[in-house]
Amino acid sequence: MTNKIFMVMTFSGVPLSIIGTLMNWSNILLFFLYCITIIALASYMGRATESLAIVAGPRIGGLLNATFGNAVELIISIFSLKAGLVGVVLASLTGSVLGNLLLVAGLSFFVGGLKYKRQEFNIYDARHNSGLLMFAVMIAFVIPEVFSMNLTKSKTLTLSIGISVILIFLYLAALFFKLVTHRGVYQHERETEEREEPEWGKEKAIAILAIATSIVAYISEHLVHTFEFVASTFGWTELFIGIIIVAIVGNAAEHASAVLMAYKNKMDIAVEIAIGSTLQVAMFVLPVLVLISLFFEKSMPLIFSWQELVAMASSVLLMVVISNDGESNWFEGLTLIAAYVIMGIGFFLS
Amino acid sequence: MTNKIFMVMTFSGVPLSIIGTLMNWSNILLFFLYCITIIALASYMGRATESLAIVAGPRIGGLLNATFGNAVELIISIFSLKAGLVGVVLASLTGSVLGNLLLVAGLSFFVGGLKYKRQEFNIYDARHNSGLLMFAVMIAFVIPEVFSMNLTKSKTLTLSIGISVILIFLYLAALFFKLVTHRGVYQHERETEEREEPEWGKEKAIAILAIATSIVAYISEHLVHTFEFVASTFGWTELFIGIIIVAIVGNAAEHASAVLMAYKNKMDIAVEIAIGSTLQVAMFVLPVLVLISLFFEKSMPLIFSWQELVAMASSVLLMVVISNDGESNWFEGLTLIAAYVIMGIGFFLS
Amino acid sequence: MTNKIFMVMTFSGVPLSIIGTLMNWSNILLFFLYCITIIALASYMGRATESLAIVAGPRIGGLLNATFGNAVELIISIFSLKAGLVGVVLASLTGSVLGNLLLVAGLSFFVGGLKYKRQEFNIYDARHNSGLLMFAVMIAFVIPEVFSMNLTKSKTLTLSIGISVILIFLYLAALFFKLVTHRGVYQHERETEEREEPEWGKEKAIAILAIATSIVAYISEHLVHTFEFVASTFGWTELFIGIIIVAIVGNAAEHASAVLMAYKNKMDIAVEIAIGSTLQVAMFVLPVLVLISLFFEKSMPLIFSWQELVAMASSVLLMVVISNDGESNWFEGLTLIAAYVIMGIGFFLS
Repeated sequence: MTNKIFMVMTFSGVPLSIIGTLMNWSNILLFFLYCITIIALASYMGRATESLAIVAGPRIGGLLNATFGNAVELIISIFSLKAGLVGVVLASLTGSVLGNLLLVAGLSFFVGGLKYKRQEFNIYDARHNSGLLMFAVMIAFVIPEVFSMNLTKSKTLTLSIGISVILIFLYLAALFFKLVTHRGVYQHERETEEREEPEWGKEKAIAILAIATSIVAYISEHLVHTFEFVASTFGWTELFIGIIIVAIVGNAAEHASAVLMAYKNKMDIAVEIAIGSTLQVAMFVLPVLVLISLFFEKSMPLIFSWQELVAMASSVLLMVVISNDGESNWFEGLTLIAAYVIMGIGFFLS
Repeated sequence: MTNKIFMVMTFSGVPLSIIGTLMNWSNILLFFLYCITIIALASYMGRATESLAIVAGPRIGGLLNATFGNAVELIISIFSLKAGLVGVVLASLTGSVLGNLLLVAGLSFFVGGLKYKRQEFNIYDARHNSGLLMFAVMIAFVIPEVFSMNLTKSKTLTLSIGISVILIFLYLAALFFKLVTHRGVYQHERETEEREEPEWGKEKAIAILAIATSIVAYISEHLVHTFEFVASTFGWTELFIGIIIVAIVGNAAEHASAVLMAYKNKMDIAVEIAIGSTLQVAMFVLPVLVLISLFFEKSMPLIFSWQELVAMASSVLLMVVISNDGESNWFEGLTLIAAYVIMGIGFFLS
Repeated sequence: MTNKIFMVMTFSGVPLSIIGTLMNWSNILLFFLYCITIIALASYMGRATESLAIVAGPRIGGLLNATFGNAVELIISIFSLKAGLVGVVLASLTGSVLGNLLLVAGLSFFVGGLKYKRQEFNIYDARHNSGLLMFAVMIAFVIPEVFSMNLTKSKTLTLSIGISVILIFLYLAALFFKLVTHRGVYQHERETEEREEPEWGKEKAIAILAIATSIVAYISEHLVHTFEFVASTFGWTELFIGIIIVAIVGNAAEHASAVLMAYKNKMDIAVEIAIGSTLQVAMFVLPVLVLISLFFEKSMPLIFSWQELVAMASSVLLMVVISNDGESNWFEGLTLIAAYVIMGIGFFLS
């Protein structure tokens, strides 16, 4: 059903986006058109990645998911960096972290909790993820922020590069840990590794992934240039667009599938999507962008605004405390959503 | 026994307070007279609320406790707000949070631990409370503090109002969760829901509650005007009076009963009083006061001093880590008390 | 084997250090000579303390370990304080905290984890230690930092003294708790109290301890005066020398034995060395130095730089989350090491 909706959105959104761009339609209209089209294309990219991952087996599949899972955000961010919008990139990645950690997980816990009194998920994975969240946000993001206060710009960039390399290294090590050395060691009791059937064959999946990615790239390049018009029209700041809008657009498909899984009581998968996605953005997409930015005119150090940093740190602490027991209920979901709303108001007013 | 002491304190304190006020006794004398009288009256209000809660059943009873449990603090704070003492109100609520979280819980763990080697309490409740403490302090208090640095006064107030509404909503949702949808779901093994007998009948309890509340209101209005004299006489700051003195006066009865419960090895109740009271202040009393302040000349945004905020945040983190295992001993109690003493010295010197 | 290496290092290092000092060799050469000699002597002090602790029984032994376990750091720090290098002392104690918490524990988890898939340690001890880490760093270090912003110098010192006394008191109370009131209460299932044989007899151990301590004192006094030359020659800051070099020199022996224990799957001991040592520095060595500094010209308040404080706070939070489940694996070790490297880069660039 949702697949059909995304199909209609894609096959009307893509031509309209291209026509609109060529005919210089109003920026506001184009902004919404682009957003809807990207959401639809992202769902195709997600399904193609899934199919490839199943065909390739769990090890290569994990790597594929790691690389293409947040491909849309990566692409939008690269074009934003090229346009010199460093602040917007950091904002949209902050938004992605907050969105996955608070909104996706919150909605999953809430919706699942309306149906089931108590839902369990793999407590080992939850703790493993908690350690990584703490590392990524409380160490890798906090340290450059605090140290940069006394550092020159070039030293700050050096520190950012060093930390980015360490983040990517540790992210790959985490994949190696989960997929190779400790595969199945921390199995959840009720878990059974089902043999899944890929939706599409290898060739078809690669083709769809390639086509969808290039269209997303094309649209993203134009999307970032509509931000300033949208900002001035609606009285939003560019940061708000980055934090709330871009983050939602880039993650809409993941949001939907996590909530669906929670509703089916497959909490391991729901949590994996929400927190796994957060970690992917924080430990892979973000440091890769820092390194890519070195080739552009304006490089991007790993320095968030204090608001962004504190929002992420608070969210991580809240999530660690809430997920620590390997159980969820509707109230825990509501708490996470409430935290997201508070931050949304804060960023909207900023 | 303690009830008799409170009776004597009430029946001598109330007339003396009224006479003293009318005859303009020295402010210092009146300050102590008021404090003692309020402590005694608070114990009556507590017992009346208890009785009503038993009569009304757990659902309405929970609501009653939520509303009247910290009524004294609410009343003192309203008169302080009316007198424009916004800083004192925030200080006394900070003091209430610190006092309940560190001193009441600490004394309970310590005194109970002197008698029993290991004491257990409901681990599900402890984790539920940890989540709420994190939400209230690390999200709802931290976010406006950090965001207000870049916001205008009016936007800060808007943010404060929004967060206050969310806090009250989530507090009510937590009651709904505990009393309706998940009542008894996370039962402690050893728990048995005893059928309690109310101390007083419905009419008597309502009458006592009404009378005690109005006298507390009368005295509180005069109490807040003695602060500046006490401050200058003893060399204390008004903030210290708020944080340590007012907080102890407003919570004396709760302190006593929590420690008593711990001594009887009823740790579930002791913890519920200490942490439940903290949450009530942070998620109900405080946001209600923010909303009430809109009707006064000087409105109160949800912005603490950095010292207050950090003290609360550190205390919450310490408590989350200590209570996380559902067990206590004398040393954990001593740790909490030591933390309270450190903060007491800090606020005294400030 | 390692003992033989330390023997060679000692019997060549000590005479060379004395000769070099008297003949005014180059400061750079002396710096490395001193460092190596202290590392070797520290291993003798450690073994002598161990032997004495076994002879004296666990209670007195615990106190002995508490006093002499970080004797080298205490001695170097006292001479640094005498030379007015307050900043270097705080830096080297920060380095000691970070080194024990991240590097020693990290290497132990990593090396042990290469051999064993999952390693367990006493979860009660881990939680007890977590509470103390939170207390020491998040309360006792954070509060003076934040409150001192609005305090005069003399009030800041008063606060520091008060907190130092409380820290030492709570540290002794923790020993009393572990060795007297709750000895064996929280026993790890697999633990068996082996009857150990001391390496040396009482007299020999005392003699070695006395001799080694006096030589370390002699060398330390000269070591601290080489810092400025080393700093200018290598382009390091004095803080970096304090945080990374002095910390590693002062703890090398402990590092080695913790990793060795982890490799033998004796995780309880490895964790006890790493975290116990951290707590000893934070709750005993540091506050004792604050009190000792009152007798010197320049007194040392308990105020770290923001970088140092944040680095410690982040490390504690990471460790609490990682050690919380009483289990370790190679990836958790790698995470801690990665955090140490990030902080090392930060302090190196500062």
